[in-house]
Amino acid sequence: MRDLFASRMECLGSLDLKQMFELADRPGMISFAGGFPSPDLFPLEDMATISEQVVTSMGREALQYGVTQGYPALRRHISHYMKTIGVAAEVEDVFIVSGSQQGLEFSAKLLLNRGDIVFCESPTYIGAINAFRSFECEFVEVAFDKDGMIPEILEELIVKAEKRCQELSLKEGEYRFGVPKVIYVVPDFQNPSGRTWSAERRQAVYDIAVRHNVMIVEDNPYGALRFDGETIAPIKSLDDEGRVIFLGTFSKTLAPGLRIGWAIVSNEIFDKFSALKQAADLQSGVMAQRQISVFLDSCDFKQHVKHLAVIYQQRRDCMIRAIEHYFPSSVRYEVPSGGLFLWVQVRDDIDTRKLLAEAIEENVAFVPGTACFPNGGGERFMRLNYSSMREELLEEGIARLGAILQRYESQGKQKEK
Amino acid sequence: MRDLFASRMECLGSLDLKQMFELADRPGMISFAGGFPSPDLFPLEDMATISEQVVTSMGREALQYGVTQGYPALRRHISHYMKTIGVAAEVEDVFIVSGSQQGLEFSAKLLLNRGDIVFCESPTYIGAINAFRSFECEFVEVAFDKDGMIPEILEELIVKAEKRCQELSLKEGEYRFGVPKVIYVVPDFQNPSGRTWSAERRQAVYDIAVRHNVMIVEDNPYGALRFDGETIAPIKSLDDEGRVIFLGTFSKTLAPGLRIGWAIVSNEIFDKFSALKQAADLQSGVMAQRQISVFLDSCDFKQHVKHLAVIYQQRRDCMIRAIEHYFPSSVRYEVPSGGLFLWVQVRDDIDTRKLLAEAIEENVAFVPGTACFPNGGGERFMRLNYSSMREELLEEGIARLGAILQRYESQGKQKEK
Repeated sequence: MRDLFASRMECLGSLDLKQMFELADRPGMISFAGGFPSPDLFPLEDMATISEQVVTSMGREALQYGVTQGYPALRRHISHYMKTIGVAAEVEDVFIVSGSQQGLEFSAKLLLNRGDIVFCESPTYIGAINAFRSFECEFVEVAFDKDGMIPEILEELIVKAEKRCQELSLKEGEYRFGVPKVIYVVPDFQNPSGRTWSAERRQAVYDIAVRHNVMIVEDNPYGALRFDGETIAPIKSLDDEGRVIFLGTFSKTLAPGLRIGWAIVSNEIFDKFSALKQAADLQSGVMAQRQISVFLDSCDFKQHVKHLAVIYQQRRDCMIRAIEHYFPSSVRYEVPSGGLFLWVQVRDDIDTRKLLAEAIEENVAFVPGTACFPNGGGERFMRLNYSSMREELLEEGIARLGAILQRYESQGKQKEK
Repeated sequence: MRDLFASRMECLGSLDLKQMFELADRPGMISFAGGFPSPDLFPLEDMATISEQVVTSMGREALQYGVTQGYPALRRHISHYMKTIGVAAEVEDVFIVSGSQQGLEFSAKLLLNRGDIVFCESPTYIGAINAFRSFECEFVEVAFDKDGMIPEILEELIVKAEKRCQELSLKEGEYRFGVPKVIYVVPDFQNPSGRTWSAERRQAVYDIAVRHNVMIVEDNPYGALRFDGETIAPIKSLDDEGRVIFLGTFSKTLAPGLRIGWAIVSNEIFDKFSALKQAADLQSGVMAQRQISVFLDSCDFKQHVKHLAVIYQQRRDCMIRAIEHYFPSSVRYEVPSGGLFLWVQVRDDIDTRKLLAEAIEENVAFVPGTACFPNGGGERFMRLNYSSMREELLEEGIARLGAILQRYESQGKQKEK
């Protein structure tokens, strides 16, 4: 049937994330590959009670179809939360999606014609590459440093793309081909780099988006998991014209298995998201939305997230101690001030895809950097998740990886001789 | 931002389903508009126990990310069920989706380039129109009668489309435009007509799909809700080359609020669905999948569905009695032998969209036929759902609608004079 497939399917070859989820399931595997929250920290007792209660007290509604845009009480909670981080989102601006991944897919489906251009951090989130690529876009990767995407480079690349678009469109007639459409960013504890953008960079990139009429998709799954320093308001907080689609999720702060996230969008885009939602899956889990809403009513969510951040910070520190102890001194990394990931650079003669194959034999896994660069490259990098397991396992996994890296090190030294 | 939207968004104007879900929520409204199962018949006690149990006994897995293709134990249950209806689907052929609506969207995304052609029953399911249209297809509606789609007409239309495709493709160069890709059908208790295809028609349409290399998307949300007669094996049971994507759901037989359905697909398409799932939402509700799986382990699902069918048959009969009593004798309808809907034709001088506006003032709603014809028409029809409410309400709603129809009747008679 291959000859019947749509052209977009050629862009969607990789099953990277699928394999990651499967790897994590293998017995004995220590997987640093996922972006999993710690299952030890799920509020099981509360969720057990609440799950029963939702069926007992509102089962006829919770098990029935719900409204397209999501459960009003949950949307109220989210509106309230958004205000605490500086975004003046009212209930009617909150659209419930099935994890922020669905927010990425909706943004892509809303905005991208074949050949349109998405500007992204280099490296960027694998799932965003999947979502955007499935609508046959091109990626332009933008250099970024410890303070975020570099505005001058971004603007230069947009101008270049605008020129190319004009040339191509002249050739192809009326159809505008290769239009700069989206700047996709993860400004808080970025996946995979762990970096957080400064307030100045947020403003500068927003201004560029306005100047060049490009949308911003601001993906913020980790923002609440800050270990130190003050919250920096999202780019969405600067947006007075509906140019930013902000995406949030309960997957990292409560439970990914409920598959509930949200988008903050303008009225115009809200209606378009409604149409997309009806085409996609009618509405997100009605029971799951009520479970979360009742959890937010009855439990101290803020305290829960604060506790997660404390533990994840300890695990980050544990991973760094283990790296300092077990990895060769040739590795490089930055210390993230929140989120789930450490982004590690290895020696120039190591390809982390090859390293991964060896690691899997030792029952330890990670994401090779190549998965995070839509246009190739990244062979020297690996993404390590520190949130999902206890410190003993973290240390054991890093020791296993370290042993392999040390072998490369001594081979390298032999070559040098 | 409208100038940044993708061209596909122009195809997705209608918020019909969204409005339906909202109408149903209005106090005092008797809505025949939804395709809702009866909330009175949800197995609340079992679901309350199971919901707690899933968190208590497997919460760390149920609240965590899961595998892309779905929970293995649930897929086993579905494989078993499929065999009982004549489809030899093994566990590895079952792909879990977020309601069969997502199966429609995935099928569309997998198969449709802009301009490709979907053949469908006339009338057809609104949600399928949304899903396919969001990938900029064209619809060719195929006449069908009480035994299903009429094979001769289908083949004639496919041949015509093939010719047109050849002509257009010659003009446009290499890109093949307007390719016949999909035959979309609901052979059991069709939405909205209530009709069920004969075994002969299933075979004939499958053979045509093979002859002309077109995929079949077989949507089967209602098949288990049969009131009388024997199950007719799905088209998928005839498929030995992976040409049919079969879609099922728990939304009508257990609970739509869990948002869990499934697709039965070939290995090749299974891998493509995995890629689509990662782009769309990573996986369906992990907790919801386990809740359903434990329900199927521990409760008598077959008996539950049998009970639903008995009650829905009573409600169908109640609606028909009420129609015979309250509606003018000029209305026409067929008696469905299963499913959720009665498809009613009114007098030639009535437009059911106008009728709906009047009905909503009387706090009663239905789906006007126009929503079910992708290329226009259907003004004389309305779709009435009989599954979602108790008989008293059913009767009251039909009485309200009947009063409006009778007004038209006497106006019509006055005009005739």
